Amino acid sequence: MTTLTTNAERKRPGRPRGTSDTRERILSSARELFARNGIDKTSIRAIAADADVDPALVHHYYGTKTELFAAAIHIPIDPMQVIGPLQQIPVEEIGRTLPLLLLPLWDSEMGKGFIATLRSILAGSDPSLVRSFLQEVITKEVGSRVDNPPGSGPLRVQFVASQLVGVVMARYILELDPFKSLAVEQIAETIAPNLQHYLTGELPGFA
Amino acid sequence: MTTLTTNAERKRPGRPRGTSDTRERILSSARELFARNGIDKTSIRAIAADADVDPALVHHYYGTKTELFAAAIHIPIDPMQVIGPLQQIPVEEIGRTLPLLLLPLWDSEMGKGFIATLRSILAGSDPSLVRSFLQEVITKEVGSRVDNPPGSGPLRVQFVASQLVGVVMARYILELDPFKSLAVEQIAETIAPNLQHYLTGELPGFA
Repeated sequence: MTTLTTNAERKRPGRPRGTSDTRERILSSARELFARNGIDKTSIRAIAADADVDPALVHHYYGTKTELFAAAIHIPIDPMQVIGPLQQIPVEEIGRTLPLLLLPLWDSEMGKGFIATLRSILAGSDPSLVRSFLQEVITKEVGSRVDNPPGSGPLRVQFVASQLVGVVMARYILELDPFKSLAVEQIAETIAPNLQHYLTGELPGFA
Repeated sequence: MTTLTTNAERKRPGRPRGTSDTRERILSSARELFARNGIDKTSIRAIAADADVDPALVHHYYGTKTELFAAAIHIPIDPMQVIGPLQQIPVEEIGRTLPLLLLPLWDSEMGKGFIATLRSILAGSDPSLVRSFLQEVITKEVGSRVDNPPGSGPLRVQFVASQLVGVVMARYILELDPFKSLAVEQIAETIAPNLQHYLTGELPGFA
């Protein structure tokens, strides 16, 4: 728990609470439970209980569980805004569409909070929030579309993730020159066939 | 300077010095100068002067400038042990050979220092040492072999770096499952065609 409020204080009946305090307490509980149990096994109800608020209030402030997760790790939009469109396009176009959706977000002012959060999570000892997001949300939403042969979907998505995380490292953290100042389209077009290869191409050694 | 010895102390003539103190002072000067000026523009002589030792002693302890650089960022082998073999093989085989050389190193006990260095950069340490290494050493040694059309070599190498850094992130820092426990050969064979595509394939938008 990163909140400064102690449990004893929180449980005191009738204590008046500021809205921003309640919001922060929900985020703090969300971070803790998502990190400990993963996204799938963490319910809005459990987060509400930990934060000592009504589940309806969690929904009211943060919407869906995925939106709450995004808020907890400072992603400024609902991840489904990216994942949703991917579900509508043909599988053969995901390799090209994915970086064209993500790079402008990462490049934007909004993306800075995400990069900063990624840094702090990766630097620390516990990357489980990012891991859960990749393994549970992305694998479920995207991996199910490329699960051919059956069971290969999660691995395909992880190879894609390795390339995309590497782009984040090269462009925003290592700031390689000229990589850091390439146009979005140039990066997208260059990595697109490789992402597509991971998604629908041969997967050596897959049993 | 991370050394605990002040400049005034270091310059005092005739002060007896322990060997480990001298070695650490050389590494500290090396880190500072490599980070400030890059690898190309930093000489062994300049590092020796900063550390207040004879250049011959730097060579005696650390060998070549590349070996000193590797020691400074905790890479436990001379990078030329990896880069050297790459210069001997046909360009068409680099995409496959590179991960087969690197993954066993990263997987080994020796690789932990390198992973730790990458982590510290994520935590906010100055990334200029790793950036210099990628932009100067790797680009010169590998990029010159794939500089077709002329001028494209550095960019080709940076795309390769983005994939390889991403593999390090997925396998050792995010520890994605099953990615973290895949056999070296499985990762190498899966990413090989993609690395080769960056090295010798079409490079969209390259003017």
